[in-house]
Amino acid sequence: MNVLKGACIIGQSGGPTSVINASAYGVIDTALKSGVITRVLGAEHGIKGVLNDRLFDMGQEDPEELRLLKYTPSSALGSCRYKLADPAVDDTDFKRILEIFKKYDVRYFFYNGGNDSMDTCNKINQYMQSVGYECRVMGVPKTIDNDLYGTDHCPGYASAAKYIATSFMEVYLDSHVYDTGMVVIMEIMGRHAGWLAAASALASEYGAGPDLIYLPETDFDMPKFINDVKGVYAKKGNCLVAVSEGIHYADGGFVSEAKVEKTDGFGHAQMGGLASILAEVIKEEMDVKVRGIELNLLQRCGAHLASETDIEESFMAGKAAVENAIAGINGRMIAFERGIQNGRYACKTKLVPLMEVANVEKKIPRSWINEDGTGVNHQFIEYALPLIQGEPDLPKQDSLPRFAKLKKVLSK
Amino acid sequence: MNVLKGACIIGQSGGPTSVINASAYGVIDTALKSGVITRVLGAEHGIKGVLNDRLFDMGQEDPEELRLLKYTPSSALGSCRYKLADPAVDDTDFKRILEIFKKYDVRYFFYNGGNDSMDTCNKINQYMQSVGYECRVMGVPKTIDNDLYGTDHCPGYASAAKYIATSFMEVYLDSHVYDTGMVVIMEIMGRHAGWLAAASALASEYGAGPDLIYLPETDFDMPKFINDVKGVYAKKGNCLVAVSEGIHYADGGFVSEAKVEKTDGFGHAQMGGLASILAEVIKEEMDVKVRGIELNLLQRCGAHLASETDIEESFMAGKAAVENAIAGINGRMIAFERGIQNGRYACKTKLVPLMEVANVEKKIPRSWINEDGTGVNHQFIEYALPLIQGEPDLPKQDSLPRFAKLKKVLSK
Repeated sequence: MNVLKGACIIGQSGGPTSVINASAYGVIDTALKSGVITRVLGAEHGIKGVLNDRLFDMGQEDPEELRLLKYTPSSALGSCRYKLADPAVDDTDFKRILEIFKKYDVRYFFYNGGNDSMDTCNKINQYMQSVGYECRVMGVPKTIDNDLYGTDHCPGYASAAKYIATSFMEVYLDSHVYDTGMVVIMEIMGRHAGWLAAASALASEYGAGPDLIYLPETDFDMPKFINDVKGVYAKKGNCLVAVSEGIHYADGGFVSEAKVEKTDGFGHAQMGGLASILAEVIKEEMDVKVRGIELNLLQRCGAHLASETDIEESFMAGKAAVENAIAGINGRMIAFERGIQNGRYACKTKLVPLMEVANVEKKIPRSWINEDGTGVNHQFIEYALPLIQGEPDLPKQDSLPRFAKLKKVLSK
Repeated sequence: MNVLKGACIIGQSGGPTSVINASAYGVIDTALKSGVITRVLGAEHGIKGVLNDRLFDMGQEDPEELRLLKYTPSSALGSCRYKLADPAVDDTDFKRILEIFKKYDVRYFFYNGGNDSMDTCNKINQYMQSVGYECRVMGVPKTIDNDLYGTDHCPGYASAAKYIATSFMEVYLDSHVYDTGMVVIMEIMGRHAGWLAAASALASEYGAGPDLIYLPETDFDMPKFINDVKGVYAKKGNCLVAVSEGIHYADGGFVSEAKVEKTDGFGHAQMGGLASILAEVIKEEMDVKVRGIELNLLQRCGAHLASETDIEESFMAGKAAVENAIAGINGRMIAFERGIQNGRYACKTKLVPLMEVANVEKKIPRSWINEDGTGVNHQFIEYALPLIQGEPDLPKQDSLPRFAKLKKVLSK
């Protein structure tokens, strides 16, 4: 085997998750112990840190603080939403990346992110190959959206799903407390795929979840929605609704982009979220108590409700990326394959070409969604339930989370 | 001692908390084991359940399910917001309550709630005394708002405070992930007192909390607010703000009640929350990325982040109510007195006359708030930190909360 000695860069990109740092730790820990990778560099704000020569020397961090990354949400190295140009059109960035790679003798590049990040990975890989610079580029997946192609599920999804299901169970109890009825509409992230909103169905499995779930996989129809809510309310005297932020009409227009104009006393225009838009629609139609709740950023950084399975799999993805790269693999994303071991859910890693992953979105199969588009069936529950299992032993200080504190020493 | 044999009623009222059921369990468990109280009746939807003769026989519940009440948020018996009339003006309700008390030989009435509930307790107690019906009426406090008079703190506050502090720490990390700055404004419950919003300062103690906190204890000034945010942003490139829903201008007008008009595509009027109002103000003023987040119901039902201290103290309050009533005490609310035991925080119960508690609100001392009204000082931290300590061993099923399931058998 061709042992490729040199430094590695690990970068994080896109929206954070509760466990993206568990993957980063998988990369950093495995690389530091590899005996092959000579130096582990953390890019500040993803690929921007490479372009700006802002690279942290991860070898100078306290090992115990690094270990705490497993339980620290958000992107510890900083993130970005920077899209590289097509190198055939403009190779300025790529020349700069090559320069930095040469400066630090970088032979491994690990990029931790979603669809766009795999596109970044893929372009860097192709460019390095085109100029003959020996380097192994690996994608480490993450996204709460769970919409990456070629993998059974994505690191980060399960912890967000667990946060959503737990929050629904709690809000269900809260919103059923009075003898006067109430409609509660909860808005969940997911622009194009409904995996997150569907996770609310896990709460329904345990008797305290939404009555209705609307996903971007089907077209939304406002009069039907109003009827659905009225129907549930007439029967139960209450109605709890889960909506994906990405629900859209048949013509593709997002429901959240209803034309709204609103000014406060200062003459400032205002924009409400989808939950408040739908809450107002119901209020006008039904004359009942209605509340719109947006789970907002909380759902993607709620590490205190992380799934142990998700944490360990995320770590495993980072570790596998380093091990495979050292073994000579290049241009692949680590993916998950679901199996059964001793009659129980098991998960192992596999490799997917970056080319195939970049910019493709995986949605919930239509057959997992009920016919009238107001819920998911047992196939989804069987898919999602194993992923949220396990309670991590969260490090705490004075009963508050003890997150990793990195020194972030810049490399020279 | 005059041993008063007879049935008891336990009712829950007002907005739910994460631990109100721990208090109810304290009452139920102690009463069932008392040997004096002959029957334990749970009122459906508080005092309404008494008026409507909807009383559950708690003795018929599975003891293990009752125990799970310690970890089950919201009001398991159902709540109400029903204000009894002044008996001097209209005694209809009181006559009915007396009728029900006589029907079931009720000699003990325990009411679990906030300010208004203590008013209900007080009126019932006075009425029963005026008609010479022997009965002991005790208030068991609860409120996330922490605004009850005569007690060091209120059951329910600490768990909400812990939820708020933890969520701020997580959102802090999430909102500092990009190199492009961001202003995040988080809206917290508390109409007249800022105890909950102030709890976000606990997150700042651990390096990941709000830069600015606005409370109802001081007057809000919009131009100053804009300047405060601009100042922090100029220095840090980011700004995290905590606002209490009850912030108001010097003339008393709520900031959340800015005149707003907004219509969606369907012509429905809309109302945004305070967080989105302030987010829009900042967006207009600063041209930066701004996000408004409303913690909404989640903060008062987030039992998965409950404080063990809060759970145990809530249970203790319920237990003390029963023990004191059996010992002959009447017309009192259980309150907490803070002390030091072996150099550590300790808490014991004391008794406060219902008369003194009803309809009074306790606010944060002005001396605990910094001079320009943008944060709290160490006196608040020392007050709040001991309250949130301890992680309960939460019952789970398939990694989701296992809440109590009551049979709710109606008494005849």
